[in-house]
Amino acid sequence: MASLPAAIQNLVDQLILLPGIGRRGAERIVTHLMSAPSEKASALAEAVGELRGRTHVCHQCDAWCDDALCSICADPGRDGECLCVVEQPSDLYAFEQAGVFNGRYHVLGGTLSPMSGVTPEDLNIASLLKRVKEEPIREVIIATSPNVQGDATAHYLAQQLGALEVEVARIGVGIPLGANLGYADPGTLKLALEGRRKMNE
Amino acid sequence: MASLPAAIQNLVDQLILLPGIGRRGAERIVTHLMSAPSEKASALAEAVGELRGRTHVCHQCDAWCDDALCSICADPGRDGECLCVVEQPSDLYAFEQAGVFNGRYHVLGGTLSPMSGVTPEDLNIASLLKRVKEEPIREVIIATSPNVQGDATAHYLAQQLGALEVEVARIGVGIPLGANLGYADPGTLKLALEGRRKMNE
Repeated sequence: MASLPAAIQNLVDQLILLPGIGRRGAERIVTHLMSAPSEKASALAEAVGELRGRTHVCHQCDAWCDDALCSICADPGRDGECLCVVEQPSDLYAFEQAGVFNGRYHVLGGTLSPMSGVTPEDLNIASLLKRVKEEPIREVIIATSPNVQGDATAHYLAQQLGALEVEVARIGVGIPLGANLGYADPGTLKLALEGRRKMNE
Repeated sequence: MASLPAAIQNLVDQLILLPGIGRRGAERIVTHLMSAPSEKASALAEAVGELRGRTHVCHQCDAWCDDALCSICADPGRDGECLCVVEQPSDLYAFEQAGVFNGRYHVLGGTLSPMSGVTPEDLNIASLLKRVKEEPIREVIIATSPNVQGDATAHYLAQQLGALEVEVARIGVGIPLGANLGYADPGTLKLALEGRRKMNE
């Protein structure tokens, strides 16, 4: 049995370590790169190589940015009184792409998970408390995902923020737009009922 | 709306050009590379960058290889009388991984497709005819995929090889192992019936 050439096998091995790419997917990508003009592979190699060197982490909110301070923290037009706490920088860009929030963000860098050894010290919680104390923040919206880890993290943050003079809110849970109610799980249905809003006000 | 940092946006744009990766998948990969040790991104960049420089194409069968001649063409233990014609190098490795064929291969580099402007001159057909004339080849097995383009290419090859003293065979079409017969399409069922084999011989 002949094996793949070394450089191809090496790239396949690297690709299957990435999320969402299996062996067949990795082989398809390699086939594509081998048959496309070689500039395509060069451009991809350069883009991957430059990623970590050219991208910084905002020293205020921990989002990804081109400079030391991200464009949101640097923008005086954003509402400095409202802070949205998210798990990952990618969550921040989900909000930004939706264009539904004009405050600032704080990136936790994950969720509390005692089973995986993630403690409050591993997340950007101390810097969050420091910001709430020092900046004129009126409301903190905790937008961690509504799952076991995200909920536990939200409760921990609410507890820590409770001693400070700030409103703490949790992002709304319910049936997503366009979804079929018949397929919703019991937990979501319960929370959607609890989060009902009056229509005749 | 804040946009992604330039280096991240650039990598997302490169990744979604690859087969099987959409915008969400590209963002997941970037999130993964940003949170993993930076050596991981460096190793991936190096693997992609070395791919085209270190991989060659066998001057005999057009498979991918480390040297000018691939390990299969160079192996005197392989049956030089039987030649399996495949579309892409990845198809060759599918046979090799299955360990079911001990002859040699010839890679076409695609299939005939007049709609996409792929003519016989764009495929490795002249080199196939030359090999059949010069090497002691007894049988050519055409293992292009059983779809419109693959079948058309197989018929064209059979016609071209017809003038030479060589057996030409098409790979068997039928129900794959483990599949449910009830889900098979009519075309496959018809060809599976035509390709039936006697059990009481």
